[in-house]
Amino acid sequence: MIIVLKRGVRQKDVTNLISELVDSYEVQIHPIEGSECTVLGLVGDTSKITLEDIGTDERIHKVMRVKEPFKKANRAFHPENSIIRVGESSIGGDEFAIIAGPCSVESEDQITEIAKSVQSVGATFLRGGAYKPRTSPYAFQGLEEDGLELLKKARAVTGLPIVTEIMYPETIEKFVKDVDVIQVGARNMQNFALLKELGKTDKPILLKRGLSATIEEWLMAAEYIMAGGNENVILCERGIRTFETYTRNTLDLSAVQAVKKMSHLPVIVDPSHATGLNYMIEPMCMAAIAAGADGVIIEVHNNPAKALCDGPQSITPDRFAKAVDKMRKYVEIEGRTIRRGQ
Amino acid sequence: MIIVLKRGVRQKDVTNLISELVDSYEVQIHPIEGSECTVLGLVGDTSKITLEDIGTDERIHKVMRVKEPFKKANRAFHPENSIIRVGESSIGGDEFAIIAGPCSVESEDQITEIAKSVQSVGATFLRGGAYKPRTSPYAFQGLEEDGLELLKKARAVTGLPIVTEIMYPETIEKFVKDVDVIQVGARNMQNFALLKELGKTDKPILLKRGLSATIEEWLMAAEYIMAGGNENVILCERGIRTFETYTRNTLDLSAVQAVKKMSHLPVIVDPSHATGLNYMIEPMCMAAIAAGADGVIIEVHNNPAKALCDGPQSITPDRFAKAVDKMRKYVEIEGRTIRRGQ
Amino acid sequence: MIIVLKRGVRQKDVTNLISELVDSYEVQIHPIEGSECTVLGLVGDTSKITLEDIGTDERIHKVMRVKEPFKKANRAFHPENSIIRVGESSIGGDEFAIIAGPCSVESEDQITEIAKSVQSVGATFLRGGAYKPRTSPYAFQGLEEDGLELLKKARAVTGLPIVTEIMYPETIEKFVKDVDVIQVGARNMQNFALLKELGKTDKPILLKRGLSATIEEWLMAAEYIMAGGNENVILCERGIRTFETYTRNTLDLSAVQAVKKMSHLPVIVDPSHATGLNYMIEPMCMAAIAAGADGVIIEVHNNPAKALCDGPQSITPDRFAKAVDKMRKYVEIEGRTIRRGQ
Amino acid sequence: MIIVLKRGVRQKDVTNLISELVDSYEVQIHPIEGSECTVLGLVGDTSKITLEDIGTDERIHKVMRVKEPFKKANRAFHPENSIIRVGESSIGGDEFAIIAGPCSVESEDQITEIAKSVQSVGATFLRGGAYKPRTSPYAFQGLEEDGLELLKKARAVTGLPIVTEIMYPETIEKFVKDVDVIQVGARNMQNFALLKELGKTDKPILLKRGLSATIEEWLMAAEYIMAGGNENVILCERGIRTFETYTRNTLDLSAVQAVKKMSHLPVIVDPSHATGLNYMIEPMCMAAIAAGADGVIIEVHNNPAKALCDGPQSITPDRFAKAVDKMRKYVEIEGRTIRRGQ
Repeated sequence: MIIVLKRGVRQKDVTNLISELVDSYEVQIHPIEGSECTVLGLVGDTSKITLEDIGTDERIHKVMRVKEPFKKANRAFHPENSIIRVGESSIGGDEFAIIAGPCSVESEDQITEIAKSVQSVGATFLRGGAYKPRTSPYAFQGLEEDGLELLKKARAVTGLPIVTEIMYPETIEKFVKDVDVIQVGARNMQNFALLKELGKTDKPILLKRGLSATIEEWLMAAEYIMAGGNENVILCERGIRTFETYTRNTLDLSAVQAVKKMSHLPVIVDPSHATGLNYMIEPMCMAAIAAGADGVIIEVHNNPAKALCDGPQSITPDRFAKAVDKMRKYVEIEGRTIRRGQ
Repeated sequence: MIIVLKRGVRQKDVTNLISELVDSYEVQIHPIEGSECTVLGLVGDTSKITLEDIGTDERIHKVMRVKEPFKKANRAFHPENSIIRVGESSIGGDEFAIIAGPCSVESEDQITEIAKSVQSVGATFLRGGAYKPRTSPYAFQGLEEDGLELLKKARAVTGLPIVTEIMYPETIEKFVKDVDVIQVGARNMQNFALLKELGKTDKPILLKRGLSATIEEWLMAAEYIMAGGNENVILCERGIRTFETYTRNTLDLSAVQAVKKMSHLPVIVDPSHATGLNYMIEPMCMAAIAAGADGVIIEVHNNPAKALCDGPQSITPDRFAKAVDKMRKYVEIEGRTIRRGQ
Repeated sequence: MIIVLKRGVRQKDVTNLISELVDSYEVQIHPIEGSECTVLGLVGDTSKITLEDIGTDERIHKVMRVKEPFKKANRAFHPENSIIRVGESSIGGDEFAIIAGPCSVESEDQITEIAKSVQSVGATFLRGGAYKPRTSPYAFQGLEEDGLELLKKARAVTGLPIVTEIMYPETIEKFVKDVDVIQVGARNMQNFALLKELGKTDKPILLKRGLSATIEEWLMAAEYIMAGGNENVILCERGIRTFETYTRNTLDLSAVQAVKKMSHLPVIVDPSHATGLNYMIEPMCMAAIAAGADGVIIEVHNNPAKALCDGPQSITPDRFAKAVDKMRKYVEIEGRTIRRGQ
Repeated sequence: MIIVLKRGVRQKDVTNLISELVDSYEVQIHPIEGSECTVLGLVGDTSKITLEDIGTDERIHKVMRVKEPFKKANRAFHPENSIIRVGESSIGGDEFAIIAGPCSVESEDQITEIAKSVQSVGATFLRGGAYKPRTSPYAFQGLEEDGLELLKKARAVTGLPIVTEIMYPETIEKFVKDVDVIQVGARNMQNFALLKELGKTDKPILLKRGLSATIEEWLMAAEYIMAGGNENVILCERGIRTFETYTRNTLDLSAVQAVKKMSHLPVIVDPSHATGLNYMIEPMCMAAIAAGADGVIIEVHNNPAKALCDGPQSITPDRFAKAVDKMRKYVEIEGRTIRRGQ
């Protein structure tokens, strides 16, 4: 960690600051006297010093971190890729994971139909919203508990593990029992109360990147879960909020490479929510593979007649099947496989 | 609501879409045939139609909302300013609210000392973090329950109502009993589970704007609480995340005017967290008054000797006193008052 | 174009506004009376009405454009892809364009060496900065005119057309004579004086997206050049400025699909400047192909010994060769080709 | 400057890098060996080292600047506030500058009328667009040379110095002769060709902040002009581009304080273009004063009958007069004055 002192700080104040730091943290201090200001280099365990804590108006101008503040998520201490296994499916290994399903679970027919359909072309997980985070309190909030039951029926029929979003801490026990991968939505990425509870379970957690979360904050959110003892974290890039409004969000594919560099955790991409435009889903899936992602999560609807309930970010099973066909060619170049459809 | 259809959509498809919309929602449809595409104007209750729901790749190009999707927070249906009263203090009326206190509650001496100090110059509420949301799981998470007890002691001494952040849904009951204003932090602005629970209480809620929340999303978060029955919502602008990193966030003072235009709810400003730079706190307080805010929330620390624990966003009681002196002149121009110190 | 009037506007004012609009522009007006406000649908040539012009505090609440404001760049009026041909190279057709070369032209040896090296593995254009836009006036500003001469020598040796950035309007004549593709940098994307002058030439223009330019503004910048008579515009996505600072900018690959949807112009991707991190260049090239780009522009340096002068966004010829090898597999899936090296 | 090396870099490579740096720049190097990586502290003249130049994939992980890269604009070397004087008006001193006038110059009557009107209540400069930067090539581009003539007539009548935007480098000579303050628009903030030419003149330059320019980049743009010999630079904050679209841009008032801290140059605020909403102009003027600005630039129109030509960011002379009245109270608190109207 580097601390830049203000111009004109007196030697006495520098000495005091050094003493305070050495007393408070297990660090050694190396001061560098510049022509205009003094810089302190801190060596040792600086992970307990947060940028928010340190610094006062009196002496410190700026603090710069040299080491990443995350440990369990850090590739430096865990060089191999982590592989999260769920039944016969996995994320992070040679098999490219395809998580597909409707935005919301609506009925037994709907979810079972889609589950069979996506499985038949190679999907490895079934997604579907039971509890739905909605911007408006007046919008449909999902089938909730009933939705979970329907997901379980679809799993019974297809064998596909199910991925669904948790919203209420009091449902954790139920989710642990019923669900295969628990999704934390973008809006809850820094809901530390929820992350801590999930850290006490051993369920795989799909952690979506917050709309305005830096890559480091996202990894720190993963660290919250891992620090609690649950190292089964899968990261999911789903677009960040920028000034561009043509797409719903801006898909940040270079974040996939960044995560791969800094962390051993698997990372997947959600082109449906990132772009909000169904004509972009297929090319963005291909781009995700090329960018090094371990999988994709895609919205698939099966009811073109009742189109109003399916968002512009969904594709039909037909288009999904064609997309998977093309994805097979792409993953092959990357030395990976996509499961044969069943 | 305006729906722009794609170019080249056939007349038959237009007719079908109109039927589906009329069947699904209580709306009347007015089609306008343009030279290149058709536009549908929807009149009626469009609040149940969400932008996420509507639109398919087949027929719809773009959806534009004309009316705001919030009702209870909407000034159109509640023209007068709402005033939230807490004991002898209030937010939204003639008295300009000053909420002051330390970042974290650390000890009885610390919090009581600061409480007396800020009260003596005119603060109307005491703030202090008991449960602290921290980016790192390894950072100090606050004194938690003990912190609440210390806040209560400081209240007993000064009479100042206390404002503190809630993080854990299971503590709501305790907060309702012990705390005067419950703060929802920026990271939890769209934690709908929490918002719904708070909507069932009758406590004043201080709702901070999320780092990347639009003004409309912020008002919709308020609507979640209000829809549950609790209309005591105070909004707090605390900076948004932009590309500029000189300040921690970018304080969006024009949002104060926007909120005042669209909503009857009171809105205050947090210059400490927005800028993260203590030399900016005083001028940004003045600017907040000028921009029409109903109050400010400021971090004040009292222990210059142990400076490392106080963030660069805090000011000393001396500077706070001077700032309040100056604020008195500003609020007078705006026809408001600041309480005399006691 | 849709005009939403304010709540409570009197009928007389609505009538007057309609008359004014009909008098000022060649449009027909279709009013829709909603429960709370009136909406006007404008049919006809609305391209002369700019969002900045229209709207007053008296009557208008909001204006929403239905049609894109660009014409010559619009795919609606030019359904086929445009192909820009330069000698034996082209951008926008079946051949995937690879523009490679150093950040700055430094010496005859350097530029000729790199030119031969990139040509030998399949590059179709040579890039190199002669005039360099630098954030600091004290930084090296490029070899300028001498740099152009060196580029010409490298072209003479290899036959590769040269792409280089223009900064000074007074050099346009020289650029038209000496250069094959004139690059407009991100900082000058809305330098309308420059765009207008370039519109009078017939040279291919490589128009980089501005750091905070929306896709529509970018296409409008292309429209400036095209409106002057020069339709040879190539668009280049090079990252947008967001809150994320791990990468220099955020590469917006979905913008490639957006441009392809709205416009017939070719679009290429610059992973070097977008990410600023050389380990990301190769995967982001692959992702660009997958996202539908017509080419890439990559920085290649050849002097690992003097590493300080080469930015972290450059790769060596060896890595470039390997990247091109892999790109061949990707473009094949997309039904395109990369030229054989010579 | 701090250079963080990659983990695992060999001692030999560290030694080589140090030699290269010492050879290339006039710096001394202080290495700090951390537990996981080595950090180099550079002392000396690091202003010639740009972040773009330095760093290679081989050895360097990250570069962090300690000192600001600007010199002439730096308050550290010029502690007193600069005051820019133009005739009897000035910016940066005790008199708060009010620059007012129409968006575009339209006719002699219009500009003279507005000039007299704004002067009569205390404006100190007349603004008006003659050359207009427009997003669309099909929109009205201003009266250009004729516009300048009309501005001169308005100046002749009122004595108010004129401020107007330059777009074409070939008009610099004319602007130097005819205009009192030359405005550089946000889109041209990094048009270095233009900045260099303006640096050769001795005219006051009003330099608007680019839509996505950091405060440091903005000061570096000022440095370009100053490095050329022209130190008469006035900075103008006019909103930055963020995800929030309710306002046209997000007015960054804390940037005023940041500029005041880092630089001696005067800084004014443009609430008209920043917000694009006329109901916000008055409160944002007050907030600008409170934030420490040296002046404001406001759009005033005088023709409510022909409302379509006046943007939503303009106010009428009546509202302007009331705003100035209120501003007098605000500037008084800040120890400044506003000129009496004439």
